[in-house]
Amino acid sequence: MPNQDSKHIVASYDRDLEAIQAQIMKMGGLVEAAVLDAAKSLERRDEELAEQVRAGDKAIDELEERVNEECARLLALRQPAATDLRTVLTVMKISANLERVGDYAKNMAKRTSVLVQMQPIDGASGAIRRMAKAVEGMMKDALDSYIQRDVELAQDVRMRDHEVDQMYNALFRQFLTFMMEDPRNITACMHLHFIAKNIERMGDHVTSIAEQVIYLATGEMPEDTRPKSDLTSFETTEVEG
Amino acid sequence: MPNQDSKHIVASYDRDLEAIQAQIMKMGGLVEAAVLDAAKSLERRDEELAEQVRAGDKAIDELEERVNEECARLLALRQPAATDLRTVLTVMKISANLERVGDYAKNMAKRTSVLVQMQPIDGASGAIRRMAKAVEGMMKDALDSYIQRDVELAQDVRMRDHEVDQMYNALFRQFLTFMMEDPRNITACMHLHFIAKNIERMGDHVTSIAEQVIYLATGEMPEDTRPKSDLTSFETTEVEG
Repeated sequence: MPNQDSKHIVASYDRDLEAIQAQIMKMGGLVEAAVLDAAKSLERRDEELAEQVRAGDKAIDELEERVNEECARLLALRQPAATDLRTVLTVMKISANLERVGDYAKNMAKRTSVLVQMQPIDGASGAIRRMAKAVEGMMKDALDSYIQRDVELAQDVRMRDHEVDQMYNALFRQFLTFMMEDPRNITACMHLHFIAKNIERMGDHVTSIAEQVIYLATGEMPEDTRPKSDLTSFETTEVEG
Repeated sequence: MPNQDSKHIVASYDRDLEAIQAQIMKMGGLVEAAVLDAAKSLERRDEELAEQVRAGDKAIDELEERVNEECARLLALRQPAATDLRTVLTVMKISANLERVGDYAKNMAKRTSVLVQMQPIDGASGAIRRMAKAVEGMMKDALDSYIQRDVELAQDVRMRDHEVDQMYNALFRQFLTFMMEDPRNITACMHLHFIAKNIERMGDHVTSIAEQVIYLATGEMPEDTRPKSDLTSFETTEVEG
């Protein structure tokens, strides 16, 4: 059948791809909202909102499954080559990354339900909200960079991940201090620390989306010049006393 | 060209796929060794071995990149349909999961380099080694289940992830206790806790490989009947005094 009526085939490939991209954007919208709501529920100690975030993850998972199925169908039916093939594979990776970010938001909301039962830790939930907001902004731009094939914007997203890493490193030190000052803070700080680490990981997934965009547009993965992330594994802060 | 010389095409598709599978198995071997060595370096406080694990991650990353490229090439050249297409997509997902497990092993080795400078925590590194060993066994079986298309073995791997989760939950409580007993343990326990959490996540990635195998063999993702994982987000252990 190839070469026969090929304009028609190309047009329907484009239409299929657009439909899938629309689902990716829908998924992105849901994930962005989940991240912000998870942070908001923590700051406001709002268990109901946390519960909504947890319940909402199902819709994100289902979208990812649908994107996967439709990509597989597109590959099987249209058998795209070269750039088109690369686009479909990129779409699958982007949706996998978004799904992971959604999982982290759900996990954050779970821990919120636990944390509301504990004494709040000074300033922690505000700092976490700022981190979440930064990641959400990166995600918005990463998805825009995909739609616009905007390599510069994708590069910008990569660089901003460094700021999220710095926010995380600062929080890690702060939590250590709180725990050492008062053992009653330990359980809450462990949960808060997990949340901070999960947001830092969200940033990594968003960065991975930006890198996919760069790969799609340039054919090359960016060199690993990105300033490296979690420094706490090099942390040697010893405790006095 | 379709239907012309199709036997030849099928044969070369099989040959290509076999070459890619050989790389997946090589990758699996490297990742298994990295997980065991990372745990061993922690238990023996062996910085040199930890350094080797960190350096070795590059080879795993390169293999993943090669698998990705060769899968894309296979899709473009051979344009497989139906089951063959699904196999190629599964291979890509398996290699992505293996790469993530390798990352966690590297991260574990990084923290080992920090932990050797601190007072050891009683019994922790032995418990972590047992967790790592359990995950490594699951990984071996998950890859075997892929090669043999053995759904029963893949189901078994999924179920064993529950044991890893239980080991993690027990360690989480133990670390909380150590930190509360003596604030000088806090920094070391934070790192050890991260390591334990990372092994628990390795288990999730291995489980995801097993689920891919089930999907490949049966056409359906397993129902989510798997006993759920990290319970610490429901942890409400309040600290007395």
